[in-house]
Amino acid sequence: MTKFNTDDIAILENIILSRRDVRGNRFINKEVEEEDIEKILFAGVNAPSVGFSQPWEFVIIKSNEIRNKIKESFFEENEKAKKQFETSKANEYSQLKLEGITESALNIAVFYKPSDRPVLGQTSMEEAGVYSVVCAIQNMWLMARALNIGLGWVSILDPEKVKTILKAPADRQLIGYLCLGHVDLFYESPELEKLKWEKRKRLEQVVINNSY
Amino acid sequence: MTKFNTDDIAILENIILSRRDVRGNRFINKEVEEEDIEKILFAGVNAPSVGFSQPWEFVIIKSNEIRNKIKESFFEENEKAKKQFETSKANEYSQLKLEGITESALNIAVFYKPSDRPVLGQTSMEEAGVYSVVCAIQNMWLMARALNIGLGWVSILDPEKVKTILKAPADRQLIGYLCLGHVDLFYESPELEKLKWEKRKRLEQVVINNSY
Repeated sequence: MTKFNTDDIAILENIILSRRDVRGNRFINKEVEEEDIEKILFAGVNAPSVGFSQPWEFVIIKSNEIRNKIKESFFEENEKAKKQFETSKANEYSQLKLEGITESALNIAVFYKPSDRPVLGQTSMEEAGVYSVVCAIQNMWLMARALNIGLGWVSILDPEKVKTILKAPADRQLIGYLCLGHVDLFYESPELEKLKWEKRKRLEQVVINNSY
Repeated sequence: MTKFNTDDIAILENIILSRRDVRGNRFINKEVEEEDIEKILFAGVNAPSVGFSQPWEFVIIKSNEIRNKIKESFFEENEKAKKQFETSKANEYSQLKLEGITESALNIAVFYKPSDRPVLGQTSMEEAGVYSVVCAIQNMWLMARALNIGLGWVSILDPEKVKTILKAPADRQLIGYLCLGHVDLFYESPELEKLKWEKRKRLEQVVINNSY
């Protein structure tokens, strides 16, 4: 049983603080080693899962043909998205680079596969299965950062179109679509914070004692 | 910009592999220092969030009165849960200790607070907001483990009852209910794997190349 020390804590904290959402403007043209992809997947499958159900599936996408199709879905959804913001914000939105589907070295589509029998811990909160898959993605994100590999999560996609493109069985649910690759740099703070799109919340704004 | 090395990667991997879901049978009667609670919350608020929306709220629960009420909801939901398993599995289920609501030093209820305006990246996949909160929980879980503090996620609860007990505003959504405390030991492998409740999946079972 490992007992971690203050150095270990500091390293984890540094990885957590240095992790960024990486878009196409930062990816460089360099392959990701198979060994590194395996380390990232290994971090994923060692995430917590409700009732040890491990309800995740990872589609590793290197095919340019498939990625171009996914990117079409991004373009469609992004056009719709712009219309939801007020004029000044919509202009600002249009200038943002929000994905790196084709600029990255590879994409990983992460799916939830529901169980065909009752799962321990999922009987009252069905959504705990999907949450397990998100925990896997966060583990992968941190491991990618420790490997100095950038990862960006693209959520401006039609999940049903992605399922069709990837020929996913009907019961699967797309949880995250990830772009991975080496980068020229990691920003020191989140890009949307740097650009003043949103302000950072103070801890006192989000912590409540005992009850609301 | 930090460049991590092989030692850092090994430490993150060890934290990921050593993280356990901790239940009431492992918590010991010892307070968690405020400084450690702050480190855990700091890890949470530095998780990725869609459009840098930071849609999380953390209710820190030390009150025994509140925890006893939460535990009542666990008992009710757990009785219902047992009935969902077949006889032999239901007997096995009944012997499992599945939460540590009152045995732990403190509980943290983690909520999703929806935004009242459009959020960048949440226009096509609304659920990305909730997923951000799950990423925060996974960061907290890893930081707790690095601090040698146990964390258990209790999902056998009625989220609406928890909301009522904690007087949460109507728009909030309970994502995770966490129990934290010092432990006598961390198991070397997940308890449900050790007890042969579920088998570990091989990587080949969950990795797909390019498309299904």
